[in-house]
Order: sequence, then C-alpha cells, then structure tokens
Amino acid sequence: MSLPASRFTAALRIASRRYPAQRGAPTPRPHLGREHVRCFSGSPRWQIRTKEMNDDLMKDLKVNQARLMEDIHYTCQWGTGERWGEKPTETGMARLALSDADKAARDWFVEATEALGCKVTVDAMGNIFAVRPGLRNDKPPTFVGSHLDTQPSGGRYDGILGVTAGVEMLRVFADNWTETEYPVGLVNWTNEEGARFPMSMVASGVWAGSIPIEAAHSLREVHPGTETMKSELQRIGYLGSTPASYESMPMAAHFELHIEQGPLLEMANKKIGVVTGVQAYKWLTVKVKGRDTHTGTTDLKSRADALLTASKMILHSHRLATANCALASTGILNLKPGSTNTVPGEVTFSLDIRAPKDETVDKMKDSILRDFPKIAAGEDVEGSNHGCTSGLSLEVEIVEDFDSPATNFHADCITAVRQSAKSILGPNQSMEMTSGAGHDSVYASKRCPTSMIFVPCREGVSHNPREFCKEQDCASGAQVLLQSVVRFDRMRDERRVSWKQEPYTL
Amino acid sequence: MSLPASRFTAALRIASRRYPAQRGAPTPRPHLGREHVRCFSGSPRWQIRTKEMNDDLMKDLKVNQARLMEDIHYTCQWGTGERWGEKPTETGMARLALSDADKAARDWFVEATEALGCKVTVDAMGNIFAVRPGLRNDKPPTFVGSHLDTQPSGGRYDGILGVTAGVEMLRVFADNWTETEYPVGLVNWTNEEGARFPMSMVASGVWAGSIPIEAAHSLREVHPGTETMKSELQRIGYLGSTPASYESMPMAAHFELHIEQGPLLEMANKKIGVVTGVQAYKWLTVKVKGRDTHTGTTDLKSRADALLTASKMILHSHRLATANCALASTGILNLKPGSTNTVPGEVTFSLDIRAPKDETVDKMKDSILRDFPKIAAGEDVEGSNHGCTSGLSLEVEIVEDFDSPATNFHADCITAVRQSAKSILGPNQSMEMTSGAGHDSVYASKRCPTSMIFVPCREGVSHNPREFCKEQDCASGAQVLLQSVVRFDRMRDERRVSWKQEPYTL
Repeated sequence: MSLPASRFTAALRIASRRYPAQRGAPTPRPHLGREHVRCFSGSPRWQIRTKEMNDDLMKDLKVNQARLMEDIHYTCQWGTGERWGEKPTETGMARLALSDADKAARDWFVEATEALGCKVTVDAMGNIFAVRPGLRNDKPPTFVGSHLDTQPSGGRYDGILGVTAGVEMLRVFADNWTETEYPVGLVNWTNEEGARFPMSMVASGVWAGSIPIEAAHSLREVHPGTETMKSELQRIGYLGSTPASYESMPMAAHFELHIEQGPLLEMANKKIGVVTGVQAYKWLTVKVKGRDTHTGTTDLKSRADALLTASKMILHSHRLATANCALASTGILNLKPGSTNTVPGEVTFSLDIRAPKDETVDKMKDSILRDFPKIAAGEDVEGSNHGCTSGLSLEVEIVEDFDSPATNFHADCITAVRQSAKSILGPNQSMEMTSGAGHDSVYASKRCPTSMIFVPCREGVSHNPREFCKEQDCASGAQVLLQSVVRFDRMRDERRVSWKQEPYTL
Repeated sequence: MSLPASRFTAALRIASRRYPAQRGAPTPRPHLGREHVRCFSGSPRWQIRTKEMNDDLMKDLKVNQARLMEDIHYTCQWGTGERWGEKPTETGMARLALSDADKAARDWFVEATEALGCKVTVDAMGNIFAVRPGLRNDKPPTFVGSHLDTQPSGGRYDGILGVTAGVEMLRVFADNWTETEYPVGLVNWTNEEGARFPMSMVASGVWAGSIPIEAAHSLREVHPGTETMKSELQRIGYLGSTPASYESMPMAAHFELHIEQGPLLEMANKKIGVVTGVQAYKWLTVKVKGRDTHTGTTDLKSRADALLTASKMILHSHRLATANCALASTGILNLKPGSTNTVPGEVTFSLDIRAPKDETVDKMKDSILRDFPKIAAGEDVEGSNHGCTSGLSLEVEIVEDFDSPATNFHADCITAVRQSAKSILGPNQSMEMTSGAGHDSVYASKRCPTSMIFVPCREGVSHNPREFCKEQDCASGAQVLLQSVVRFDRMRDERRVSWKQEPYTL
C-alpha cells in the first residue's frame, strides 16, 4: 500500500502532535521517511548492528513505557466500549473487525509504521504487513504480530498490546538507529476474535493455507448484519491485491506478545510466561432427549428429565477434567420447552474440552462417549446418581464440532523468549506455560518458527471490559518481545555463518 | 345471556346436524327449549326424581360414550393444533383464552346448554354458568365445571373433557327426563391455563375473591401481543354484566373431571382417581453469580463457574425431593454470556417445589435456603463436590415468586366421588390421590365443597399435542361425574330433611 504524500505528511503530524509533552530529556527522534529507507541497508549512519550486540548492549534497547501506553490508549479512541472505572482509560473496547473503528485503527497502524520506515503490504484478507528492512532483504523478515480487533464487550489489551508493542519495537529500533541482519516485520491479523465474522483466527488461517479464501471471504457477519468479510474489506479499503498466503508473504519467525487471559502468572507472581505451545481442544455439542411432563403431576420415577440428566453430565465432565488434569466447560445451554411447571424434555449444551496433549483430549472424549450414554440410561457413573431417584431412560447424541490439535512452538523461538526474559527480568521471573486459548500464532506456527510471550492480566479476566494489564507488565512484555526478535535475528546470522546456509528458508 | 330467537334456532339446527348417523336405536331426544323450562319445576312429565333413585336406578343414567367423544372432537375444530398421528382426531390443540377459536367454543357451549334447558349467565370475567333448574331453585346449584381454553401446544382432553362431560351430564338428564332436587350447573372458567394472560386459574380466583378483578382485567397477553383480558372479553362479547363473585353466583358444590396429567393411575392400572386435595407448591427463582472467564485459559481452581454450581444445586434439589417424598423441578434456565469458550458468569433458574403437605414444602424451602449458599461457597453438601476441583466462591440469590398452600377437598364431595366410582366400576378400580397441578377447583374449594375426578392419560403426558385419554376412560369419568352430582343432590335433600335446614347455604 503506497501513501500519497499528503497522507504521509499527516502521519508525521499525528506522530508529532501526540508526543508534545514527553517528559524527561527527550532524545531527538529520527522520524524516518522514505529517503532514509532508500539508503538504509548497510548505511554507516546506523549506530549498531544486532549481530554486534552482547547481552548488555541488548539491554540498552529500551522500550519507552509511557509511549507504549500512550499508543495503547490513543488507539482505543476507536471503538471505545463500556466504562468500568473513573479514570479516562477505564473503559472496555468494542472494535469489531472491519468496522469503521477498525478501519481507523488500521489507518493509524499504516501511518505509524510507514512513518517509521516500513514498507506496508495489505493482502487479500486485509492482513497488514509492515516490514522494516535489514541488511539481507532477500530473506523473509522476522515477524511480530497480533490483532487490533476486539470482542464486542472486550478490553484494551487482548491483541492491542501485541500490535502496539510491535510499533514500540520499531520506534526503539528507529530511536537507536539499530540495524538488524534480516528485515523485521509487524503484522496486524484480521478478525482474530471471530466475533463479527464467526471464525476465529480466520485470516492467519488463510495465510497458512488451512482455510480456503473463498470460505473466509463469504463469511457473513453475525446476526443481525448481512455483510460478508469480502464486502466489508472492500468497503473500508483493505481488500489488498497481494494473495493471502505464506508463499506471497513468507515469515522467518512469528513472535506474539499477549496477555495471559488466565490467572496462572498472577497466582505464581511471575512476570513473563514463556509459551511453549497451545493446548489441544475439541468442541462437542451434547443433546439430551427426555420427555416434557408436568412438574406437579409427574412423580420422580416417571420422569425423563433432560435438565437433571444434563446437570449430571456437566458435573461428570468436570470430574473427568479433574481426574485427567484437563479442562471441561459448558458455556451454552438451551432447553425446551422452557416453562416453570414443565420438566424439560430436551437440553442441548456445548462442551469445550482442553488439555496440553492431544492424547488427554482424546481420552476425555472417549470417556464422555462412554459415560454420557450410561448417565442418560440412568446408570450410576462415579456417584452421579448419589441420593437421586431413578427415573426413566433418556437418549443422548454427541457431535464433535471442532478439533484443534495441540500446537508445539519452535524450540529456537522459545529459547529466544526464555533467554530474553531471564536477561531482562532476572531469574525466577518467568515460567513456561501452554496457552489455553487459540491465537494467530497457532496458524503462524504451521508455516514458520513461532512462540508467544504472556504477561499477567488482573485476576485472569479477559474478553471483558475490565480486562487489565499493569503498565510495567505491558512494558516488560514489549521489552521481551523486542529482545526476542533481536536474539532471533542474531541467531539467524550465526547459523548462516556456521551452517553456510539459511536455517529458515521457506 | 339471552339469545335472540334466530340464534337459538341455529343452535338446534347445529345439534341436529351433528348426530344424523347416531348408531343403534336412537332415543327420541327432547330438544328442550324455553317453553320446557317454564313448566320444568315439578312437572309430572319428568320420569324420575334423583331423591327416589337407589344405586341401581342411578346406574341407568348412562353416559353416551360416542356422543361425549363427538362433543370433544367436534369442539376441537376451533383451535386445532399440531398433528401427531394419522387419524382425523390425532392433533393437539392451540386454543388460547379469548381468541376467536375460544369464542367459537364458548358460543357452542352457550347454544348447547341453552338447547338443553339451561339458563346461561356470563360474569365480568367471562366465566359462563349454565344452570338447569331443579325442584328447589331458591338454593345454589350443584356445579360441575372446567375450562375450554388450552395451552398453545396442548391436547384435546385437559379442560375440554371436564366441560364436555358436563354437557353430556345435561344431555343424559334431558334424555331421561331426570329431575334433581336442586338446580345443577355447568361452568366454563376463563383462562385457566394462564397461557395467554399470564395468571393461571385467574377467573375462578376472581370468583372466589382471591384476586381483585382490576388486576385480572388489566392482565396483558404474553409477548408479542398487547391486548388485555378486559379488551379481549369485550371484543369477543363475553364481558358479562354479572359480578364475578361467589356472592353473585353461589355454588353448593363444585365437581371437576380432569385427566390426571401424570402416570400414577396408568401405572397402578386404576380407572378413577378420587382426588382428596391439591398439593402445596412454591415457585422460586435462583440466581447464581460467578465470573465470566475464558474456558481455555482459566484452570479449574480459578473459576467461579455459575453453570457448574447451578448443576450442583439442581441435583441437590432432586436429592432433597427424594429424601422428603416431594417434587423439585427446574423448567427454565438462562445463562450469561452464552459462548462456547466462556465459562458462564451468571445463571438464573426456576425451582418448582411441591408436596402434599405445606410443612413438607416449607421444609424443602428451608433446606434450599440453607444448602444453596453453602454449595455456592464451595462447601460439600451431601456429596455435591464428589470428584470435583474446588473453585472460587460464588454468590446466590433466592426469591420466592409464588406460594400455593395445600388444598384439602370436602369430605362430602370426596365421598360422593368414591361411592360413585365403586358403584360404577366395582371395587379396586379407583384410588385416592392428590392433584399435582392446580385447577379451578382449588379456588372453587375456597367457597364451596369441592372435589375432583381423575382419569388416566397415556403415559402421564399432558400440555402436549399427544395428550390422550381412552374413549372408555373419558366415558367412565363422565359417568362418575354425573353420579357424584346425583349423589350430592340426594345427600343435600336427605340432610335438609334430617337437619331441618340446608347444609350448604352460602
């Protein structure tokens, strides 16, 4: 995507308007324009090459915490959500993918990264790739990335932190006249949440070749809208001409900074999660069929109570999860006919089962397929009928809707994150963990070495306006992200020298 | 309500059109008109007085099964519901109160009872009272009654059987030129189901003085309608001028024939339920408040899972019901936010608790108020946490929405039903039972001696298109209803003679 001159000037104006009151001794900031880019590679004006950095020099590449927070909160003017506190920034977010608010945030992304010397490419899924040249621009960039869209009742950190930390990384490189061996990229993935167009991580899925672009383009927005992804991409001007594919936009690696969305870091009092993979999960739909009967005239023995049976199954799924160190959750439950004095004859509920290993999820599913029909038939399964009256037999149907096998991130990326966390925060401030939720990094990992960096979020709350990450935790995460990229860049060069070839050629 | 001559003639025409192919030797039927009513009392043309009847003579007052079934199915042309079988009569009913279909059924009721010599009165709640004179018309009639309205997805027997059996009783009295000591009445109560105007048994409740007429008149029809009971009574021409009150329309007794709506008679292989009362019940709303969290990122220990907790409560209510020989049922359950990968933070569910005695229902409620907060707090209550991981504490709010104390029917009415059942069907064909559901007889019993007669319905299914009662069971019930009225009438006369006063003067 090329910017007309006037738009580029506006980007610079925005950038300068935004930091007029930067406190402390301001470093004169080289606002890189196109003229710098042209003479970028190998220019003697750059202060330092990443390959020349030791651990101490890497620490000097310091994230500006205030500037990072300002980027986060500045961009949250587009799609501001529900207020939960008194302070100006204590509101949630409602920035659905490809909405006008999303377009405004995307425009900011393009302007900010181009102003920092990046070449911006938009692909056919609206993914935006900003690439800062390195010394060897014939090779794929080392990418960082996340997403700017949010849940309809989401917070200010999920996705947004990862993208703004990427912008901050580019700002730090620019401030310090840093020269990387290989190009460095920042990607904003489209519709990660799947909240407006109901397929999460769909655009990274298309990039990875896992989802056909036709299926993605024809996704219709959730009720009550009627637009498709393609029509909305066109409307907001982000239907790019570059194919959405790892072949057209190869990556040497993908690093993603994200809030944990769970409470483990906070509970363990750790600052960084070194994410080694994403747990496996399956989504099942369970339908229990009994018989509608009058609550007053049907004795307990004569009932085929679908809700009582579903309650037993939900409890049993929790027992199975406890026994297998897995997770089981029911988030949706519908019943028929829905009257105070009618015993429900039909209940349908979702069952989300997760565990770090595929085998555990498979075992959970097998146990459910074995036990739920027994519970429906009235058999006692591990005390499920304790104290109950036996009723009539019911039927159960179980359908697997979605299967996401476990993802194991790449050892080189994990090492880069682990070493960076230790270098920046000292020992015992980080822990290795798997991600419970899916992220664009899952699809990225199918086509390039990948890892993620987690930072604590308050009480593990996410997908909620109250989602919150402390400023110093945001900055620590951004610092680890930056250093991981530098380490990975340095490692690529070392390997090239020792192996006489590129380790990560796609 | 007086009928213009033309309408009355039309009623006769309808009646004659309907039985052209009556099989067997048809008794010439005296289609009683007003001229008969005028010379009714004490007329020597009547064959027999009820006070002169012994048990054998009472058996000769025979219900015509085919004619009863024809009345049932003929009237089900108005408001026909969902088809469930091949035969013409194998459909359910959808005759909401005060709809055009209900008006048509009411018009039939008025025409049929006036044609049988009754005086019809409509009160301010649209209750229709048809009274056949007896020898002593200065005293209140012995009533039978039920309702012609149905659930939106109801059957052909609930309410309809009770009213048509009352019409059949009047037909048998007319066929046999029977003279009762006291007048006999048949009442069609308005909106018993509470399905359209959301207060069940509201019109008998107003009659009994338990519900203010203003509250009843201003009841608005359920979503998506906007009419009130009063506006609909006016629209269909059934807003009567007689006050809706037991003082304006006193009853000496109220007998109601109804399908059991439960499986006990069928399971015990009995033909008649002698209903001694209606069980007590309370309706509670339980709200469980936890916290929405991501299913993938929140370990079991860090959850405040409102649905898991609600499942434990539903199971525990069932255990309490089992332990107390009571009933506990949840027919409605709603949760928030309702997403496969979000642990529900809030669940609201209904809890319907019933038992024959008030003390049992009170004890159940006390146990729930004691135990549910413990379950919410994570305590183990009688094994509720067996095999589970302890999570975070939740909150619970319990509100009592509705309280219906136990009703005990009148010994004299119960005796009349018990003796009639034994006389008609022989020993061991009936059983005493309490009604699980509410009926207009509950309100009637507040102002006059009352009892009910139950007949089996297939598999206990009711409030369902498949609701079904065998023809011979409908007829047996109608026969017991008829004889109960005759016995009660005879008993009133015997008491008057022996006590020198009316036993049931209101």
